[in-house]
Amino acid sequence: MKVLITGIDGYSGWPLALHLLGRGHEVVGVDSFVTRRRVREVGSWSATPIPSFPRRQAAVREILARELGFHRGDLSDFAFTRHVLELERPDAIVHLAEQRSAPYSMIDVHHAVETQVGNLTGTLHLLYAMREICPDAHLVKMGTMGEYGTPNVDIPEGSFEIEYRGRRDRLPFPRQAGSWYHWSKVFDSGDVMFASRIWNLRATDVMQGVIYGIRTPEITDRRLLTRFDFDETWGTALNRFIVQAILGLPITPYGKGDQRRGFIALEDSMQSLRLALEHPPARGEYRVFNQFDAAYSVNELAERTARIATELGLHPSVDHPPNPRIEAEEHYYAPIHDHLAGLGYRRTRELDDVVREIFRDLRTFRRRLQARRHVVQPAVRWAEADSRPALAARAPNPAPTPPPAPGSAAPEGRSVA
Amino acid sequence: MKVLITGIDGYSGWPLALHLLGRGHEVVGVDSFVTRRRVREVGSWSATPIPSFPRRQAAVREILARELGFHRGDLSDFAFTRHVLELERPDAIVHLAEQRSAPYSMIDVHHAVETQVGNLTGTLHLLYAMREICPDAHLVKMGTMGEYGTPNVDIPEGSFEIEYRGRRDRLPFPRQAGSWYHWSKVFDSGDVMFASRIWNLRATDVMQGVIYGIRTPEITDRRLLTRFDFDETWGTALNRFIVQAILGLPITPYGKGDQRRGFIALEDSMQSLRLALEHPPARGEYRVFNQFDAAYSVNELAERTARIATELGLHPSVDHPPNPRIEAEEHYYAPIHDHLAGLGYRRTRELDDVVREIFRDLRTFRRRLQARRHVVQPAVRWAEADSRPALAARAPNPAPTPPPAPGSAAPEGRSVA
Repeated sequence: MKVLITGIDGYSGWPLALHLLGRGHEVVGVDSFVTRRRVREVGSWSATPIPSFPRRQAAVREILARELGFHRGDLSDFAFTRHVLELERPDAIVHLAEQRSAPYSMIDVHHAVETQVGNLTGTLHLLYAMREICPDAHLVKMGTMGEYGTPNVDIPEGSFEIEYRGRRDRLPFPRQAGSWYHWSKVFDSGDVMFASRIWNLRATDVMQGVIYGIRTPEITDRRLLTRFDFDETWGTALNRFIVQAILGLPITPYGKGDQRRGFIALEDSMQSLRLALEHPPARGEYRVFNQFDAAYSVNELAERTARIATELGLHPSVDHPPNPRIEAEEHYYAPIHDHLAGLGYRRTRELDDVVREIFRDLRTFRRRLQARRHVVQPAVRWAEADSRPALAARAPNPAPTPPPAPGSAAPEGRSVA
Repeated sequence: MKVLITGIDGYSGWPLALHLLGRGHEVVGVDSFVTRRRVREVGSWSATPIPSFPRRQAAVREILARELGFHRGDLSDFAFTRHVLELERPDAIVHLAEQRSAPYSMIDVHHAVETQVGNLTGTLHLLYAMREICPDAHLVKMGTMGEYGTPNVDIPEGSFEIEYRGRRDRLPFPRQAGSWYHWSKVFDSGDVMFASRIWNLRATDVMQGVIYGIRTPEITDRRLLTRFDFDETWGTALNRFIVQAILGLPITPYGKGDQRRGFIALEDSMQSLRLALEHPPARGEYRVFNQFDAAYSVNELAERTARIATELGLHPSVDHPPNPRIEAEEHYYAPIHDHLAGLGYRRTRELDDVVREIFRDLRTFRRRLQARRHVVQPAVRWAEADSRPALAARAPNPAPTPPPAPGSAAPEGRSVA
């Protein structure tokens, strides 16, 4: 099948492209490279050096002997969005082209608006273009488990049957997101659900757990690496913990650290997305997958990271700074995740193995981590209206760009020339 | 108290200003006059001639002997929003400055995006400006009963206590909106709820029923009239039915006509908003009011309109065109509405009396209705991606502007000079 991946230059877009190509599917990508720019904006970069996109395409051609189509542009431009669908007429669209960082959305009013407006607009443009050009295509929309928040009841997959005051109905499960970013995904879910209903589109809304990992089996060459963010804005807690351990900084679960979330390995997330693509819903069906396979608390992640770091000869410590977020630090957490298993999903990676793999890979890029060691600590605070001063204060004298590590690819940059 | 009304030039903003002035409150308004432009965009105008804003202010000065402050600008401009709050430091903000038409949002992709982006951005800008400048102020945010859709269970006020798989929690009631516009209000609700939580703001989210009526007791002079829309995009079903009866067109409930909604008289909506303002919630409290006092089906509105039209010597007929919307035409509908009664709300107007009043007033403006008789029929269809051709075809030869009725105020226009 022909799959269009929006956000193909990103952390999961890139390995998804490799995975689908490896399974014989045709893949075309879209990206504006805005994530590269936004990561530079907060003074960081990917731990793994990311080649320009033409070099990524060349690597795919050389190593996998496959062609990877690409259109550079932004889904905020409806004419561009429509043009790409008209040219490509994909069987499926995996929509990953959204601002994906909660802290980034909380920096200030402009980042809040940029996140919600950008994410909503791209999704609406895609929905309208699909309605007009490829209404039979399957939209796989990347959402987040964070849409649900942490209710005191089990979390079903999207909707639930309830009884209320003596009557029954199946209703969408209430959403209680924890950042402007997470709310933007809630809003997308509303729009995708509504478009499916009025235009008979087929859609899978993926409530994605936190992804961990740096490799998939298709990443057989350094030029095929995906990005790996470790700063407080773009990196997940686990990524930051591993980098802290490598750099000899304290590992820092925020607050009490009993915040629990659903997790899935990068490779298994790719498996899940492929299963969703290979088993599309019917016309007019809006289905929701809770896409994770185990829940861990932030403290559990910190403990595992510390244990594995110790095995590797490091001397980690764990510290609990005040939580810069406003969130429940102790709560019930039991999301249901049966739909993917019904399509044949099987977990293939264990957290400890993946953490060891990340340690191994990141030690190769130690100099890139060292050069940005100041970006790991929290600067964006939920209670503040403007965290830009704190972000700026974090690096009063921006570290000079170090020379590339021996044998590394071109430094990550906006240019795709 | 000092109340800032955003959208003060609109259907409910204007009578709210008059009502609050009449109760001794200080009122300052904000408007960009975009609704006047948007109504012109679809070829329509208000049945009542609306003076320019400076003339409205002058009428207030002359008739009520009160000053009405005003700032012209758009909440999509954060610097403007912040500036107004800094200058005025209101005790409360009633936020009505949003695109409020479901069909307008469904015209095409650009109107969908304009609606959701504009409404979300204005609300986020207000929330951030409040957080910074007047965190103790009370935000009264205009939402809609349409956020809930038509579930098969009773609709609580915002949140409900449920049991699910053996555990209990109080959760936001699921939203199932029926247009991009209605979804924009759902999104606003999410953002206001979240801002209340992280910044301890006080907020009342008003799930407003459909408002009917043309007068309030404070509208004692023709120069104080509020706008009254009757085209298919901006007018409510009841407004269109009354205008159809006056013009000798068939009254047209869409589809089966058993769609039920909650309704409230304009005067009683003003009473409700004032009660919310005079009884603010605590810091950090996000409360939801279902603001309506009776539910009617579209058929009931059509029948009442026809009955009263007959009393008045007209010869109405009722027709059922295919429904241009995609919505349940037969459904359960039982929203709870106790919170306002708890603050002392008492219904003061009956639907039949108000319908008679509208007939009486509108017959004065018969020539303005006649000149736009082509805009009453439906053109925007939910199933279409682009209803612009249908809108354009509705009036291939735009009717020339008729001379103003004798004694009428200046024709409605963008100019405020």
